[in-house]
Amino acid sequence: MKSLDKLFINKIISSDKRSIAKALTKVENEEAGSESLLKELYKFTGKAHRIGITGPPGAGKSTLTNCLVKLMAGNGLKVGVIAVDPTSPYTGGALLGDRIRMQEIGLLENVFIRSMATRGSLGGLCKSVVEACDVMDASGKDFIIIETVGVGQSELDIAQTADTTIVVLVPESGDSVQAMKAGLMEIADIFVLNKSDREGADGVAATLRNIIHLKPPSRYGWTINVLKTTGSQNKGTEELMDEILKHKEHLEETGFIKIKRKEHLTKKILDLVNNKLEIKFWNDKRRKELNEEIEFITDRKTDPYTFAEKIISSQVI
Amino acid sequence: MKSLDKLFINKIISSDKRSIAKALTKVENEEAGSESLLKELYKFTGKAHRIGITGPPGAGKSTLTNCLVKLMAGNGLKVGVIAVDPTSPYTGGALLGDRIRMQEIGLLENVFIRSMATRGSLGGLCKSVVEACDVMDASGKDFIIIETVGVGQSELDIAQTADTTIVVLVPESGDSVQAMKAGLMEIADIFVLNKSDREGADGVAATLRNIIHLKPPSRYGWTINVLKTTGSQNKGTEELMDEILKHKEHLEETGFIKIKRKEHLTKKILDLVNNKLEIKFWNDKRRKELNEEIEFITDRKTDPYTFAEKIISSQVI
Repeated sequence: MKSLDKLFINKIISSDKRSIAKALTKVENEEAGSESLLKELYKFTGKAHRIGITGPPGAGKSTLTNCLVKLMAGNGLKVGVIAVDPTSPYTGGALLGDRIRMQEIGLLENVFIRSMATRGSLGGLCKSVVEACDVMDASGKDFIIIETVGVGQSELDIAQTADTTIVVLVPESGDSVQAMKAGLMEIADIFVLNKSDREGADGVAATLRNIIHLKPPSRYGWTINVLKTTGSQNKGTEELMDEILKHKEHLEETGFIKIKRKEHLTKKILDLVNNKLEIKFWNDKRRKELNEEIEFITDRKTDPYTFAEKIISSQVI
Repeated sequence: MKSLDKLFINKIISSDKRSIAKALTKVENEEAGSESLLKELYKFTGKAHRIGITGPPGAGKSTLTNCLVKLMAGNGLKVGVIAVDPTSPYTGGALLGDRIRMQEIGLLENVFIRSMATRGSLGGLCKSVVEACDVMDASGKDFIIIETVGVGQSELDIAQTADTTIVVLVPESGDSVQAMKAGLMEIADIFVLNKSDREGADGVAATLRNIIHLKPPSRYGWTINVLKTTGSQNKGTEELMDEILKHKEHLEETGFIKIKRKEHLTKKILDLVNNKLEIKFWNDKRRKELNEEIEFITDRKTDPYTFAEKIISSQVI
């Protein structure tokens, strides 16, 4: 590895903000050399505890994230934040709207905040978010918070990379049956009922607790709690921080953290390999074949399945 | 093709309910012969207009779907409905909760309703939902409504199979800025503000219209309207039906329906081929290799990228 690259790596793992930012941009844009960068950084990853925060829009996730970061930074911990926003064509890039206030805490020495767009995959957590986590992890963060907008693919992806997943609801999303239907039950390690100063909060909290109670027990003996917070007044946030630490401890004591991370890693490798397979397969010749056949398929002269079999078994390269 | 199979195909395309149900089960469970069934049915597809209905949980999508189906059936149209629910481990299969009332309209001759689980992909529209649409299409439906829970992957997938996508919001999801951030703007052909008898509805409708106004014009000159409905009182539903028909007409007049469907078809074929590639690649030997390497990667003795390159370039079969 060239000495300039070695210098770059050293700066990243020493938590140099400018180098981290540079690495994140390189990885996000899939620039040449980004994969070898990730390859080199990999041995320095594995220390950070990854917290995913998700939930419907308007639940106050950004505000809560802000509170948590202040708590952690105040305790001398190194924190990374990745705020994921869907790409909007008419504002370009990531919307920073109500994350402006985050900028002040981002100035703290031991805090690094990055806003990332999801590049049109409608809220899906593109692979570069997971890679961004790896860069932050390698830079020595104790905790990394991944905050997502909570629609589209993000809930699923969050659960596939986070060690602790927090689902934030508000009394108005109030139809807890809906939350259950929405599958959020399956991924939450901690439920937060935010804006709990609003009417109906206690009722919703109670309903949520009842529903959780009906769930079969978790694979590793963890009890999912429902915490009430009012992020705008910084209420309940210390309790939330405690709950996160409790969960982290429980994962470590039971050894389940290793199982969880092995599952994440397996998925990551499958995605990596499958992505490379696709890129390798769809060369110019095959893309051309697809474009030519599309007309015939649209006209029902042939069908997608026949075509798929043909193009896979054909020796055309 | 065997004569029993031919009989089966004929029954499906003649709209025989039992045969349609049998075909849907076969396809959903990926039973042996399901792909050849789809292959044979493909030439009969392409007629049905596919309507996707999505939005956050609790917005009243099921109720609106119910109203639309009654309107269409009342006008002698043949309608299929696919109600997609995330799989919940403690209720098993699809939740039928507030769709019980759908069962009555499902008894009508020209209406076919199917509830489908999303098999744990947290709201993602598994490929069998798209295939279920194809079966219904082949059975001669004029319209197919795909109703999704509206979290997870469904919004994105809906837009990749529906001709007309309707996004349903309620005044409480009210933070229209959030709806915009959530990327729902990008996929909606029609916005519906349901439960519009509630307070604040007019204000939210106005804000939504302003936001839409800021969008760059659509690729085919379509103006996205915001309709106010109160599904529980069947108010505004005729106007919604009219808007759907207007959109259908506009797609046909501009020829954009062909472009849209070609894009859907291309994505479908890419997914089909990529899925087959993955299945072919991950044979026992390679899976074994992955399981063996995982430990080394977890211990940072090697990294995912090195492994991915190795397993792809290796001649091991």
